Amino acid sequence: MSPNFFATTGAGYHSESKAKEYKHVCKRACQKAVDRLRAGAMALEAVTAALIELEDSPFTNAGTGSNLNLCGDIECDASIMDGKSLNYGAVGALTGIKNPILVARRLLNEAQKGNLSAYRRNKRKMEQAEKLETVYNPSKRRQQSSGTEPMSASLDTVGAIVVDQEGNVAAAVSSGGLAMKHPRRVGQAAHYGCGCWAENARDARPYSTAVSTSGCGEHLMRTMLARECSTAMQTEDAHQALLEAMQNKFIGSPFLASEDGVLGGVIVLRCCRCGEDQSSDNFQALLVEFLWSHTTESMCVGYMSTHDSKARTHISRLPPGAVAGQSLAIEGGVCRLGVTD
Amino acid sequence: MSPNFFATTGAGYHSESKAKEYKHVCKRACQKAVDRLRAGAMALEAVTAALIELEDSPFTNAGTGSNLNLCGDIECDASIMDGKSLNYGAVGALTGIKNPILVARRLLNEAQKGNLSAYRRNKRKMEQAEKLETVYNPSKRRQQSSGTEPMSASLDTVGAIVVDQEGNVAAAVSSGGLAMKHPRRVGQAAHYGCGCWAENARDARPYSTAVSTSGCGEHLMRTMLARECSTAMQTEDAHQALLEAMQNKFIGSPFLASEDGVLGGVIVLRCCRCGEDQSSDNFQALLVEFLWSHTTESMCVGYMSTHDSKARTHISRLPPGAVAGQSLAIEGGVCRLGVTD
Repeated sequence: MSPNFFATTGAGYHSESKAKEYKHVCKRACQKAVDRLRAGAMALEAVTAALIELEDSPFTNAGTGSNLNLCGDIECDASIMDGKSLNYGAVGALTGIKNPILVARRLLNEAQKGNLSAYRRNKRKMEQAEKLETVYNPSKRRQQSSGTEPMSASLDTVGAIVVDQEGNVAAAVSSGGLAMKHPRRVGQAAHYGCGCWAENARDARPYSTAVSTSGCGEHLMRTMLARECSTAMQTEDAHQALLEAMQNKFIGSPFLASEDGVLGGVIVLRCCRCGEDQSSDNFQALLVEFLWSHTTESMCVGYMSTHDSKARTHISRLPPGAVAGQSLAIEGGVCRLGVTD
Repeated sequence: MSPNFFATTGAGYHSESKAKEYKHVCKRACQKAVDRLRAGAMALEAVTAALIELEDSPFTNAGTGSNLNLCGDIECDASIMDGKSLNYGAVGALTGIKNPILVARRLLNEAQKGNLSAYRRNKRKMEQAEKLETVYNPSKRRQQSSGTEPMSASLDTVGAIVVDQEGNVAAAVSSGGLAMKHPRRVGQAAHYGCGCWAENARDARPYSTAVSTSGCGEHLMRTMLARECSTAMQTEDAHQALLEAMQNKFIGSPFLASEDGVLGGVIVLRCCRCGEDQSSDNFQALLVEFLWSHTTESMCVGYMSTHDSKARTHISRLPPGAVAGQSLAIEGGVCRLGVTD
């Protein structure tokens, strides 16, 4: 009767010199998510825990380690989606908040209340909500580092995707935005369908899917890559589906025809229950497929199930000779997990 | 050889008491767009001219007439899309700008330069661009009117869709946001795929389409209604396609399952060239279909072709007894225009 789950988290495009630190923070984020899942948390809570860990690292371009904009300020984007309710919360160009994902999560909770509450909400309630928001952190203004890789760091956004015991999926993403960006420019992490997507199975939709993206915001936004990958994953062969989505809806997208190269990466999770009961006590297998793909030089991914004692991390790279922006790498695997119904 | 074009503009959900003013501003916006088209302008320029007129009216919730947020400030959303290049520009929660559509248009122009320029742009260039931006208008702070329709005004956003002489389409939308909104909340007009969409015909895509939406931002965003309608319009029967899109992808959307009612409206334009040459000098007919649909109580639309001496306007209403948020109205027509190739 012990819970059997799967959890994963991935950080996007990574710069060579930070590989070790990236792997470490990915591991810690996986561990946080799995700890929450083992304690009985649902996917939404686990994915939030992973994102907080990723945002708190000074090595990721999210939360604490965010790039600075033109004015030397930090402005963060973040979003989160719950596959069960399909609710979504996002913030863009948020300042003075240590963990942007927590504000996105709060907005998702507000959406959960639904019923046109936006129209009914009054000023008093608003002010109350504001006071409850995450701690203001004024110590964020820093000097932009002018090291050897001023731009390579700018794509290091983070994300996570999770499936819980009940088969619910959730996805989240957080980004500090482009280095030297124009103040208040928002990227894919603040955009519905672009930074993350989570959708439970229902009716004619056999698979639950969760996707998180990283890379060049304009490319991920104009192709709505998270949602496109989620939609693509409803066909039988997950590997082929993701390959075609990356080739036709991203690299070959008519919306990016004028671009020299198309830069991005995705982590994708899909799962379905295997129908046959395997014992008298309603045992069902949860078939989980985890894949990643990227057109950037490299991408760091980490993953862990509740069966595992520790997370696995991997720096995925384009094949030798492949041109970033025009070629892709794709990898992944299948994992069968027991589920109590 | 005189140019023969079609132009249209529509304003969203309208409040009863403002019907007359709404019709007037719609007429003026149509006239502006058609004037530009007659002068040889392309769709993108014509749609911008229409939006400026709509934003400058004190009766629309966009630009000058925008709702105030919780702090008594104006914050505007606007976006514009060019069906030919598929480029897009958007601004959200923009303050101190008289015509938000002009900033969105400038961002579209920047996108037009393409080629990862975002990464290559330097601080100096940014500052230069900032100086060129639209005139700062500090006289925007007003008292929120507390009249008899404090909320009805909040959905009165504006949009326009255009097809030009060459068959290029463009779409735009502009909104002052929800009355009493939380500062920096952005709505559908700032979101890709949600507020407007324009896509020229190409390859396996026989119809050029342009869409602009109005209504409850959360509903339009979570259903990505503009893009959904554009995609739907590739099937033969335009009326049936729009009806099904509004029923299945909007009112019946799983993404809005928890909502009591789903409030929004769309204006949709699609066109294709009729293949047969009708004379020796490459005369082709441009078949333009213009439709609108809404689940709100009413919607104001205006339309005009370059054949017309003046614009036609119409307040569309739900059928008697129909419940707003659960039923829809749908109307429209077909127009055959000559085109010089």
